[in-house]
Amino acid sequence: MTENNTETPEDIAAVPDHSDVAIFGERESEVRSYSRNWPEVFDTAKGVRITTESGEQYLDFFGGAGALNYGHNDDDMKAALLEHIERDGITHSLDKFTVAKRRFLQSFSDKILEPRGLDYKVMFPGPTGTNAVESALKLARKVTGREAILNFTNSFHGMTLGSLSVTGNSMKRAGAGIPLVHATPMPYDNYFGGITEDFQWMERVLEDSGSGINRPAAVIVECVQGEGGINAARAEWLKALSELCKRQDILLIIDDVQMGCGRTGEFFSFEFAGIKPDIVTLSKSIGGYGLPLAVTLFRKDLDVWAAGEHNGTFRGNNLAFATAAVAIEKYWSDDKLQNHTLENGKWLREFFGKLVEKHPEELELRGRGMAFGIAFLKRPELAEEALAECFNRKLLVETAGPNDEVIKFLAPLVITRDELEEGSKICAEVIDELLSK
Amino acid sequence: MTENNTETPEDIAAVPDHSDVAIFGERESEVRSYSRNWPEVFDTAKGVRITTESGEQYLDFFGGAGALNYGHNDDDMKAALLEHIERDGITHSLDKFTVAKRRFLQSFSDKILEPRGLDYKVMFPGPTGTNAVESALKLARKVTGREAILNFTNSFHGMTLGSLSVTGNSMKRAGAGIPLVHATPMPYDNYFGGITEDFQWMERVLEDSGSGINRPAAVIVECVQGEGGINAARAEWLKALSELCKRQDILLIIDDVQMGCGRTGEFFSFEFAGIKPDIVTLSKSIGGYGLPLAVTLFRKDLDVWAAGEHNGTFRGNNLAFATAAVAIEKYWSDDKLQNHTLENGKWLREFFGKLVEKHPEELELRGRGMAFGIAFLKRPELAEEALAECFNRKLLVETAGPNDEVIKFLAPLVITRDELEEGSKICAEVIDELLSK
Amino acid sequence: MTENNTETPEDIAAVPDHSDVAIFGERESEVRSYSRNWPEVFDTAKGVRITTESGEQYLDFFGGAGALNYGHNDDDMKAALLEHIERDGITHSLDKFTVAKRRFLQSFSDKILEPRGLDYKVMFPGPTGTNAVESALKLARKVTGREAILNFTNSFHGMTLGSLSVTGNSMKRAGAGIPLVHATPMPYDNYFGGITEDFQWMERVLEDSGSGINRPAAVIVECVQGEGGINAARAEWLKALSELCKRQDILLIIDDVQMGCGRTGEFFSFEFAGIKPDIVTLSKSIGGYGLPLAVTLFRKDLDVWAAGEHNGTFRGNNLAFATAAVAIEKYWSDDKLQNHTLENGKWLREFFGKLVEKHPEELELRGRGMAFGIAFLKRPELAEEALAECFNRKLLVETAGPNDEVIKFLAPLVITRDELEEGSKICAEVIDELLSK
Amino acid sequence: MTENNTETPEDIAAVPDHSDVAIFGERESEVRSYSRNWPEVFDTAKGVRITTESGEQYLDFFGGAGALNYGHNDDDMKAALLEHIERDGITHSLDKFTVAKRRFLQSFSDKILEPRGLDYKVMFPGPTGTNAVESALKLARKVTGREAILNFTNSFHGMTLGSLSVTGNSMKRAGAGIPLVHATPMPYDNYFGGITEDFQWMERVLEDSGSGINRPAAVIVECVQGEGGINAARAEWLKALSELCKRQDILLIIDDVQMGCGRTGEFFSFEFAGIKPDIVTLSKSIGGYGLPLAVTLFRKDLDVWAAGEHNGTFRGNNLAFATAAVAIEKYWSDDKLQNHTLENGKWLREFFGKLVEKHPEELELRGRGMAFGIAFLKRPELAEEALAECFNRKLLVETAGPNDEVIKFLAPLVITRDELEEGSKICAEVIDELLSK
Repeated sequence: MTENNTETPEDIAAVPDHSDVAIFGERESEVRSYSRNWPEVFDTAKGVRITTESGEQYLDFFGGAGALNYGHNDDDMKAALLEHIERDGITHSLDKFTVAKRRFLQSFSDKILEPRGLDYKVMFPGPTGTNAVESALKLARKVTGREAILNFTNSFHGMTLGSLSVTGNSMKRAGAGIPLVHATPMPYDNYFGGITEDFQWMERVLEDSGSGINRPAAVIVECVQGEGGINAARAEWLKALSELCKRQDILLIIDDVQMGCGRTGEFFSFEFAGIKPDIVTLSKSIGGYGLPLAVTLFRKDLDVWAAGEHNGTFRGNNLAFATAAVAIEKYWSDDKLQNHTLENGKWLREFFGKLVEKHPEELELRGRGMAFGIAFLKRPELAEEALAECFNRKLLVETAGPNDEVIKFLAPLVITRDELEEGSKICAEVIDELLSK
Repeated sequence: MTENNTETPEDIAAVPDHSDVAIFGERESEVRSYSRNWPEVFDTAKGVRITTESGEQYLDFFGGAGALNYGHNDDDMKAALLEHIERDGITHSLDKFTVAKRRFLQSFSDKILEPRGLDYKVMFPGPTGTNAVESALKLARKVTGREAILNFTNSFHGMTLGSLSVTGNSMKRAGAGIPLVHATPMPYDNYFGGITEDFQWMERVLEDSGSGINRPAAVIVECVQGEGGINAARAEWLKALSELCKRQDILLIIDDVQMGCGRTGEFFSFEFAGIKPDIVTLSKSIGGYGLPLAVTLFRKDLDVWAAGEHNGTFRGNNLAFATAAVAIEKYWSDDKLQNHTLENGKWLREFFGKLVEKHPEELELRGRGMAFGIAFLKRPELAEEALAECFNRKLLVETAGPNDEVIKFLAPLVITRDELEEGSKICAEVIDELLSK
Repeated sequence: MTENNTETPEDIAAVPDHSDVAIFGERESEVRSYSRNWPEVFDTAKGVRITTESGEQYLDFFGGAGALNYGHNDDDMKAALLEHIERDGITHSLDKFTVAKRRFLQSFSDKILEPRGLDYKVMFPGPTGTNAVESALKLARKVTGREAILNFTNSFHGMTLGSLSVTGNSMKRAGAGIPLVHATPMPYDNYFGGITEDFQWMERVLEDSGSGINRPAAVIVECVQGEGGINAARAEWLKALSELCKRQDILLIIDDVQMGCGRTGEFFSFEFAGIKPDIVTLSKSIGGYGLPLAVTLFRKDLDVWAAGEHNGTFRGNNLAFATAAVAIEKYWSDDKLQNHTLENGKWLREFFGKLVEKHPEELELRGRGMAFGIAFLKRPELAEEALAECFNRKLLVETAGPNDEVIKFLAPLVITRDELEEGSKICAEVIDELLSK
Repeated sequence: MTENNTETPEDIAAVPDHSDVAIFGERESEVRSYSRNWPEVFDTAKGVRITTESGEQYLDFFGGAGALNYGHNDDDMKAALLEHIERDGITHSLDKFTVAKRRFLQSFSDKILEPRGLDYKVMFPGPTGTNAVESALKLARKVTGREAILNFTNSFHGMTLGSLSVTGNSMKRAGAGIPLVHATPMPYDNYFGGITEDFQWMERVLEDSGSGINRPAAVIVECVQGEGGINAARAEWLKALSELCKRQDILLIIDDVQMGCGRTGEFFSFEFAGIKPDIVTLSKSIGGYGLPLAVTLFRKDLDVWAAGEHNGTFRGNNLAFATAAVAIEKYWSDDKLQNHTLENGKWLREFFGKLVEKHPEELELRGRGMAFGIAFLKRPELAEEALAECFNRKLLVETAGPNDEVIKFLAPLVITRDELEEGSKICAEVIDELLSK
C-alpha cells in the first residue's frame, strides 16, 4: 500500500468485532488511507511495537513514514515531555522566544550544525514537511527573482499547492484541481537504468538559451526518494548536481523531510556526498517523539525574509521542542546511532541479498542505510500482496513506487538487531512464498 | 503588530539581560515576528497569563492568535494529556484508526455536529489551518471541475500557495514569488462603508456571461475577518451569500480556523446566520490545548476523495485528539461557555463604548462575541504604539487590518470578568492617553 | 448574430442553388460564423454595397466589423494599390525600411499624431488587432515588471491567449482550454445601470493593500465596447480612469482596434475625453482598404523593446501601407469626415429616437458617433430575428452584447445620408413589426 | 542576424544619404529588427531580387523568412491580383462565403489534400502563423480536455502568448512578462549530438505515472526547425514520434508555417516521413504573393469548434485567396517545383560540401531540401560577420540558432540554378575568407 491506491477496500468491515468502529464509517472521510490495509484500532506503542485495543501487538517497520526514527514513545523524551507539561511549560507560542525553543536551537546548533560546518539559519515554517517545502520554494524565488523550479521524476514533496507542483505522482497531482505549473521534472539518478548519462538532459537544457526551459530559481531533490520507490541517488550524481547548480547560479534545495534525521546513517542524507545545499527542509523525525515540527535551514546570506512574510499558528510547538532537544542530545552527541544504522543497513542488504540471489529476475534491493526497499521487477502487484500477508503475520510494512511495486522499510533506527531479524524473516518468508507459488 | 510589518526592530537587543538570547540572534531566521515586539523569553503559562523565565507575568489577550480559546494549559486537558503519555498511548499514527481518534470523532459528532443538524464528514488534512484550507479548495475543485475561487477583500487563509492565493494581504502575497492566480476578490460586507450594496458587484458578475469572471468552484469566506481587521459580516449578508451560492451552484466554504470553536459565541461562527456551508475548515482551538490539529468538514455527498488523495504525516496527532475530546466534552456539553462569551462580548462593547463616545471620530469598535477590535480611524499608527505600551504594562494584544490600524483582542474565552476588566482597563487607559496627547 | 452563438444553422443548405457551395460544406471548419446567417456567396463590393455572385446587392451596415470605415474598395486607395502592384512595389518586407512604409509613417505622423500632440512611437506588431493587443500587454509588463492586468466587464480584445485573458465573453474564454489568469475584470462605466458609482470598487481595491488584487501593470479599456453591446463610456469616466492610473502608476492602454480611425467622430475614440493614453492599439480600418495591418502606439519613454523582441512575418504589409497612407491623406487632412460622422450619428439617434418613444420599455439606444446600437431590453431574442429579417430585406447588420440583444451598426463612415436613411428605414420597420406582433 | 540580437546598431545612421529615413528614427519603435542589419530603403522586387529606392539590387536568399517560396511578385499571381482589384472583387469578408475563398478551397482540396489522402478540415484562424498555432493549441485542448503541451528544444512557434509558451528562445520568452507555463520541452532529434537516443526521455516520462509531467493534450513540432538553427528531424524520428502520440492518445501538431508549401521538397514537410499529423498549421507562403494568410488543418473528427469560438477580423483576406489559388494551381499541379527544390537542395549540399571539406572542424551543413543552413561550430560569431559581408556584396541571408551561429538560406524555391550559384558563390567566398583570416 502506498497512499496512491484508489480502490476502497472495506476497511471498516474488516475490523475485528471486538472493536467499535462505527463512528469511523459514519464520520471519517473516504480520504483515509492506512486504515484500509491495516484495519485495526491501535491504542499504545513502544519502541518498534504498537498494540491494538484488543492487545494484538505489531512489529512496526513502517515507522510513521519516517516520523519515528527513534521509535515510539522513547522513555527519555517521554520524561522530558511529562516534565514540561506538569510544570505548565508554555505549549503554544507562535514564534515568541521560549525556553524550550532556545534549548532546541542550542542543541541543534551545537550537535548538528556546527560539527558539520553548516552555517545555516533556522526557520520554523509551520509544523509539517509541506510547510517547510513551501517556505523553501518561496525563499528561493524571493532570492533569485525567478519562478521556475526543477524537480525530479518520482519526487514527493507534499500536498499543499506549492509542494504538490514539484511532486511527481500523477494521482496526487490530479487532486490539485488546477494545472500545476512552474516546475519541470528532470530525470533522477539512474532513471534510464544506467544506460545513459541521466545528467545529460539537465545540463544541456540549462546551458542552451533556446531550450525552452524557464530559468529556474532552484532545484529541489531528495537524496533518497521514499514515496518514489526508495531510489537512492549516488554520491557522484549529487555532487555533480550541486556543482551544476553552482555553475548555473541556481539554488539547491535538499528535501530531507523523510530521509534526514539519520535515516541513511548520517544526520543529513546529503552528508555522504560531501555537498552543502543552499536550503534544507526537515520535519517528520525532527520532533523526535512523533510530534509535529518542521524546520527550514538555509545559508545565512539567503535570510532575506521580511518579518512575518511566512508564518503559521503552530510554528512554535513547545512540546515538540522539548522532545526534539532530547532526541538530538541523546542520539547525536556521538556516532553510535549513525554506526548502528549503517550496520543494520548493511545487514539488511546481506540478508535480503540471499533472497535476491534466489529470485534474481524478480527482485531488486533499493536504498541506503535504513531506507530500504525490495522492488518486484516483474510482478509489481505482489508488493501489495506481501504487505497484506505481512500484516497477517503482525508486521507493518508499506509499499512505494509509481506502481506500488516496492516494499519499503522505514523501521525505527533504534531497532535492535534481533527485532530487525524478526521482521526481516517474516517479510522474506512472505516474499519467498509469493514468488514460489 | 500584525505579522505584516517589514521593519526589523532590534528584538534581540531589547531582551532584558537576565535572559540568554544569543542563540536566537545567531540562528533564528529574520522571518520571526512576534518576538520583535514582545522581546522576552517565555517559560510557563496558565489560563490567561504567561510568565517569562525571569518571573514577569503577562495578561494574554492575544490568545495564540485564536488557538487558545480555552486558555493556556487547561487542567482537565492537561490531566488527559499526561494520562495518555504516561500509559504510552500511541502518539503518531498517520490516519490509522486509534482509540484517541475514535473518542474525538465521537465527541465531535455527539456534541457539535448532531445538535446543530450538520451531517458532515470529517477529514484530517494535516494539523494546520492552511492544510485544511488547501484540502477544502482541492475538494471544491474536484467536485465541480472548475478552477476559479472567489475570495474577499482583506481575507486571510494561510501561507501555502493554495491558501495564499485566496488571501488579500499584499505583503504576504508578494512572498509567493510567483503570480497568484485562480482567485478573484469580491468586496466583503461593508467594504464601501455601507454607502452601497456590497453584493451588487458579486451578483452581477456571476450572472453576466460577459463579465470576464471565470466561473468559480467555490466562495471562501470568514464570518469575521481576523487578520483583515476584525471585520464582522452581518447575518443577512452571509445569508444572501449562501443563497447566491446555491442559486449559482457554487460551493460555500467557511474558513472557521480562527473564528470557530466558540470565538463568536456559538461553536461555529456561521450559526447565527442560520446557514449551512458546504465545506468548513477548523484548526487553531480545535485541539484545545494549543496542539496542532485541523479538520475539514463537508457535506457527505461531497466526499469524493480517493483514498490518500490528500494526506500528511501529522494528520493523526493523538495528543491533540486527547485534549480536543476533553475540550469538546467539557465546554460544549451545555451553553455555559457560549453565554459567557456573548456576555463578555457585550461587556467589552459597553466598556469600550464609553471610550468611543469620548473620541467618536478617532475610534470604532469591531467584531462579534469575543472577536473584538478597536480601530483607529484617523491615526492608524497609534495602534502599534498602543500595542507597545500595553506590553510595557504587561498586557499582550495584537494589531490587525491592512494598515495595522486595529487593536485586536482574541482573549481566551474562559477569561473571568475580572481578568477581562483588568486587561481592558489597561488598554483603555493606554488608548486614552495616546489620543489625549 | 454575434460570433458567440453555438447553434449550427444549416448555412450550406440555405445557400440559393445558383451557387456551388459544396466545397465549403466539405472542407471549411465548423468554426465558420458569419456565413451561417448570411448564406450567400459574395463576389464584388463598392462603397456601402456588396454583391453576390448571382447579382443580389446588399446594403452593408456591418462594415467588416469596423474594418471598412472608408467603405469597400475606395477608388483612390484602389488606384494607389493598383499602381503599387503594377510597378512591382515590394509586397512583403518584414520590418525592413520600405518606401511604402515611409509614406505611411510620414502621413500618420503629420496628419494624426502631430496635430493631436501625441508624441508616440509606432510599432508594427503583426497585421491583426490581437497582435497589437498582445504587444501592448507585453510592453506594459516589461516596463512595470508586473504581471496583472485590469480589464472590464464585457470587454473584447482578441482570440490569442494574451488577448483572450482580458476578454469578458465566457464562451470565447472557455475556448482557451486552460484557465485564463492574470486579469481581473472591473465594472465598466454604467455597469450597475447608473445606480451606484462604478468607480468605487476599482479605486478602493487599488488603494487597499489588503484587497487581494495583484498590483496591475496596466488597465486595458475600449472607449466604446463593440462586441460587448455598443456600451459607450462617458468622458468623465474615462478622465477619472486616466487620472486613477496616473495616481496609481498603472499604464492605461486604450484598445482602439474597432472604435478608432474615426468611428466615434474623431480619429481616436479617446480624444473627446481629453486624455492621452500610455499605449494605444489600432487595426481594422487603419489599412483603409480592408487589408491586414495593425499598429501599437506608445509614449516614447516606454519604447524599451529589444530589437526583435516581438515580431511577426506579416508586420510589413506594403499593400496595406499603400492604401493606409491614402486613407489618412484623403480623410484626415481636414475635419470633413469627422463632422460627417458626428452629424450622421446625431441623425441616427434622432431617427431611432422616435422608435424608442414608441416602444420606451423595449428599446434603448447605445453608442457614440457612428458606433450605434439598439438594445432590446425585454426580449433579447428579437435582435437575432431582426438581423435575419434585415438580411431578407437586403441589409446587413450584426448583433452584439452578452445575450446578443443589441443590433449593432458599424456602417462605413463615408455613407451618404440617403444610404443611411435607406438602411435605417429598413431596420426600423423590421424592429417595429417585431415589437408590434 | 536573427531577430534575437539585443544590440542596437545605428541602423538609421547607416542608411546611405540618398535616402530620407528621418521618419523611421523619429517614429518607428526600437523593436524593429531587420532594418538594423540591412539599412537600406527598399522599393521594388521581382523573383529573387529586390531593389532599393536608389536602384541598388540585392539577391534575396532570405525569402521573407519563408513567406516568399514563389519569389517576389510572381507574374501570374500579380495578374490575378490586379484583375481581382480592378473588377472590385470583395477585399474584406471576415468568414463570409466568397468566390475567391471558394476557388482557394477547391484548389487546395484538389491539388494538395486529395492527392495526399489527407481528409482535413480547413480553418481560417486569422492571417498569421501565430494565429494558426493558437487555434491549433486551443483545439487540441478542447478535444482532449487537457492543458499541457509538449514542445521541443529550440522550437519557434510565434509571439502571442499561447505560441510563445511553446517556443524555446529565452529572449523571446522573457518578453512575455509573465511566467510561461503549460508547456514542457522535450529534446529534439539529435539534441544530444547522436550519442544517445533522444526519444528515451520523452517515452519514459509519458509512460511513468510518477514522472511529474502533466498528461499532454498534444505535441507540437516542426519537421525542420528554422529559427532554431535549420535542424532537420529524421524520418524515423518523426515516425516514432507519431507512433508514440498514437500509443499515448496525444494529438500530433505539425507546425508547417515556415517549412511547409514546398520548402523541403514536398508540399508538406512531414510527407517524407510517411506520417499523417492530427493538426497542421500553414501560413507564410500559403498566400503565394507574400500576403497575410494562414490556415489550420485537422482531422474531420476533431472539428468540434463552436461557431465563432475562434475568430479574427482578417481571416478572410480575399486578395490572398486570389494569389494563393494561383500559387497552388501553377506550382502544385505537377511535381516540377518539388523536383526542382530537391535538386537544388542536393546541389547546395554538394557545393558547400567542398567548403566543409576544407574546414571540417569549423562548419556543418544543416537542413533538408531548400531549408539550408551552414553552422559555425567553433566560432559562432562569424555567422553574423558573414551576414554583414554578404550584404556588402549584395546578398541577403539570415542567421539562426540559439547563438546566431547558423547562416540560413530560405531562398525562393523558384530560383534558377544560375541564381542559386551566384548567391552561393558569394556566400562561400565570404565564409572562406572569414575562416582563412
